[in-house]
Amino acid sequence: DELPLDSLIAELTERLQPEQLAILLEAFPIKSRLIIWEQLSSECQKDVFLEMKNESRQMLLTVLSDEACYLLFDKLDASSLLDFTDDLSERFVEYAVAQMSAKQRQHFKTAQDYNDDEVGHWQTFDEQKIPQQLKISAAKKLCAKSLPMLTDTLYVTDSDSKLVGEVAINRLINLNNDDLLVDVINSDVQSLPANQNMDEAAESVILSGKTALPVVDESGRLMGRLDLFSAFKHQEEQRDNQMMQSAGLVDEEDLFSSVWLSSKNRAIWLGINLLTAFLASWFIGLFEATLQQVVALAILMPVVASMGGISGSQTLTLIIRGLALGQITDANKKAIVHKELKVGMINGLLWALVIGIITYFWFDSPMLSLTICIAILGNIIVASLSGVWVPWILSKLNIDPALSGSVILTTVTDIFGFIAFLGCGTLFLL
Amino acid sequence: DELPLDSLIAELTERLQPEQLAILLEAFPIKSRLIIWEQLSSECQKDVFLEMKNESRQMLLTVLSDEACYLLFDKLDASSLLDFTDDLSERFVEYAVAQMSAKQRQHFKTAQDYNDDEVGHWQTFDEQKIPQQLKISAAKKLCAKSLPMLTDTLYVTDSDSKLVGEVAINRLINLNNDDLLVDVINSDVQSLPANQNMDEAAESVILSGKTALPVVDESGRLMGRLDLFSAFKHQEEQRDNQMMQSAGLVDEEDLFSSVWLSSKNRAIWLGINLLTAFLASWFIGLFEATLQQVVALAILMPVVASMGGISGSQTLTLIIRGLALGQITDANKKAIVHKELKVGMINGLLWALVIGIITYFWFDSPMLSLTICIAILGNIIVASLSGVWVPWILSKLNIDPALSGSVILTTVTDIFGFIAFLGCGTLFLL
Repeated sequence: DELPLDSLIAELTERLQPEQLAILLEAFPIKSRLIIWEQLSSECQKDVFLEMKNESRQMLLTVLSDEACYLLFDKLDASSLLDFTDDLSERFVEYAVAQMSAKQRQHFKTAQDYNDDEVGHWQTFDEQKIPQQLKISAAKKLCAKSLPMLTDTLYVTDSDSKLVGEVAINRLINLNNDDLLVDVINSDVQSLPANQNMDEAAESVILSGKTALPVVDESGRLMGRLDLFSAFKHQEEQRDNQMMQSAGLVDEEDLFSSVWLSSKNRAIWLGINLLTAFLASWFIGLFEATLQQVVALAILMPVVASMGGISGSQTLTLIIRGLALGQITDANKKAIVHKELKVGMINGLLWALVIGIITYFWFDSPMLSLTICIAILGNIIVASLSGVWVPWILSKLNIDPALSGSVILTTVTDIFGFIAFLGCGTLFLL
Repeated sequence: DELPLDSLIAELTERLQPEQLAILLEAFPIKSRLIIWEQLSSECQKDVFLEMKNESRQMLLTVLSDEACYLLFDKLDASSLLDFTDDLSERFVEYAVAQMSAKQRQHFKTAQDYNDDEVGHWQTFDEQKIPQQLKISAAKKLCAKSLPMLTDTLYVTDSDSKLVGEVAINRLINLNNDDLLVDVINSDVQSLPANQNMDEAAESVILSGKTALPVVDESGRLMGRLDLFSAFKHQEEQRDNQMMQSAGLVDEEDLFSSVWLSSKNRAIWLGINLLTAFLASWFIGLFEATLQQVVALAILMPVVASMGGISGSQTLTLIIRGLALGQITDANKKAIVHKELKVGMINGLLWALVIGIITYFWFDSPMLSLTICIAILGNIIVASLSGVWVPWILSKLNIDPALSGSVILTTVTDIFGFIAFLGCGTLFLL
C-alpha cells in the first residue's frame, strides 16, 4: 500500500501502449481513474484519451476541469477527431478544429461531407503521395523519412490531384534515379470511392491482399486511404457494438458508467422484454381452467418453452452468420429450411421421447406424457423453422437480425410451446 | 436458366477472391457445390480449398474421388497445411508432406513440435531474412523481387541463424551499397517466443504498431513471423468459434452439413439444457399445492423468470467483455458488484412497480400484486449479482464464461425467481 504511486504509474506508461493504458484506466472506478490520470504526462493523456471507449471519454470530460479538457483537443489530427466527434459537445469540436493545422482542418471538413456510414468519413490522411511528373529520385527522397505504419506503396497523382497509379516502395530501390515516375507506375490501382459504405470498404481492404487501399472522391481525386488495421478495427467495433446492443446495452458502455445512465439504458430493453413476457402470460391465461385441474402442466411449462428456445437459437445463430456472409438467398433458402426441418424433426423426436419417458415416471400419467411429447416435438420443429424465417424476414425489413432476432424467436417458441402444451393438455387430460 | 454455367463461373472466378469463392460455394447444398467445383480450374480449386470452413472442407473430401483429393494436397506450403492438419485423415497429411519441398517439410516438422495454442504452430515462413555479414547491396537485391504481403522489414541473422536485428525496407533506399548490414541494423527488435500462447501473440502483434513480429525459438533462432493479417484473422476465428459454441454448434459448422451430424451435435446442448429445465420444474413442483389453489401464479411465472434472465444477461455481457479485456480483478470486483447492485435495485424497483400495477388490474388481487412485486425486485437484484459472480467464478475455474455463462445464469434466475414468486405466493395467498 505504501508503493509510491507515481513511480508505479511511470513504469506502467513506459511499458504499456496507449490502448492498454486506456483499458487499464477503464478498469478503475471514476474517482481512482482521475488519480491515475493526473499522474500521466500530458502527451500520454492525449494518446490514452484517443484510445478510450466513447462513454469513458465522455465521463472523463465531465469530471475534468474545462482547461484540462481543452488541452486534450490541442493539435488533434483530423481522423482522430472524426473518430468521436459525434459524441462531443459543439464547443470542444470547434476548439479542436480551430487548433488544427490548416491542412488537417481541410481534411476534417472534407470528411465531414460524408455520412458516418461512408468510408470518406473514416479514412486516414497519412497516405504517401507524389506527382507523376517527378523523378524516381524524388520518390526515394520521400521514402527516406520514417513512414506511417502499413505504408508499402506510394500513390502517384496528376496535376489535378487525381490518382493515376502507384509504385511499391521495394521496387523503387532498383529503379533509376533519373527515370520519371509516370513511366514506372502501375496504373491499374484498386481504389475505394469515398461514398462507399464503410462495411463494404473494410471488407474490400481485407480481401484486397494489400496493406491499404486509396480513397478517391467522385472525380477521382486522391483523398486518403483505409489501411488493413483500420479495416479490421472497424469490423471488430461493429461486432462489439452488436453484442452490446443485443443485450440492450449502450455501445461502448463503461464498466463504471453512472448508475442512473446505466439503469436508464437497460430499462428500455427490459420494458420491451416485459411486453413479450406478458404476451406469453396472456396465452397461458387462456388455459386457466385447464391449469386449475392439471397442475402438472404448470410444473412442466418451463421444459417445453426452454427446449424450443434453445433449438431455435441454434438455428438462428447459424442463419445469422450465413446472412452476415451473404450466403443465404432466395435461391438456397428452401434447401436450408428443408435441412433445418429435418434436424428439427430428428431432435424433436429424440427429446420428445426422452421427456415423455421422464414425465411418465414422474407423474405416472400416460396422457400427460403424450401431451408433452406432442408439445416438445411440435415446438422443436417450429423453433427450427422460425430460426430460419425470423432472421430472414428481419433482414428483408433491413433490421439487423443479430440485435432483435433472439427476442422475437423466443417469443414465438414460448407462445407456440404454451399453446401446444396447454392445448393438448385441455384435449387429453380434462 | 439457360445461361451457360461454365462462362458464368469463369466470370466469377475472374472477379472474386478465393475467400469469396469459398463463401459462395458454401452457400450451395452439397450436390450443387460439386457441379460448381468441377468448373473451377485446378489452381483455383486449391486456393478455394484452403479458404473453406473446416467442416465444408471435410464434406468436400468425402464426396471427391481419391485422386481429386490428392491433387488438392500437391505442393502445399507448410503453414497452409498446418491450418487444418488436425482434422485431416492421416493419409492425406502424409501425402501432402511427401509432396512438399524439402524446405517446407522442414518448416512443417518444426511447427508440429508446438502445440496448437502456441504461436510456433501458426507462424508463417515467408519472413525475409538476410545474414548480417552481407552488404546493403545484397539486401537491396533481396527487395528487388516481389515481396510477400505485409513485408516492410528485413530480419537480419547471425551465423547461427539467430535474430540480431532488423532493417526497414524504405531505409535501405538511402543507404550505401557497400556498407555492411551489421552496421545499420536496429538491434532492438521485439520478437515472439515460439512457445508463447497464440492469443497473446496475436494481441502483441496488433499492439506492436508493426506489420509483423518475428517468431524465435528457445535459443533465439529466427523461425518465422506472425503478421497483422494472421493476428486479426486469429482473433476473428476465436470469436466466431465462441459464438457457435455458445449455441451448442460445432466450430465452423457448414450451412448444409449432414443432417445426422448436425442433429447429433445440437442434441448434446439440448440435453444439457434439459437438465437445467427439469431442475427448474422440480422447484416449481415443490409448490404444487399453492399452484393448485392460485392458478394466476402459473400464468405469471414466465414474467418473473424472463425479467430475471434479461437483467442477468445484461450484466453478464458487460462482465464477459471486461473479463476478456482483463479489466476485472480482485481489486475492482467489489466496486463492480456495488454498481451492478445499485442498477439492479433501481430497475428492480421500477419494474416491480410497473408489473405490480398491471397485475393488480389484471387479477384484481392486491396480495398477488404484492407477491409479484417482491419476486421481481428480488429476482432482478439476484440476476444483477449473478451476472457478475457467475462469469467471475467460471473464469477462476478456467472455464470460458462466454460459452456456459448464459445457461448457468438463467438457471440461477429461473430457480430463484420461481422460489421467490411461489414462496411468497404460499405465504400471502393461501
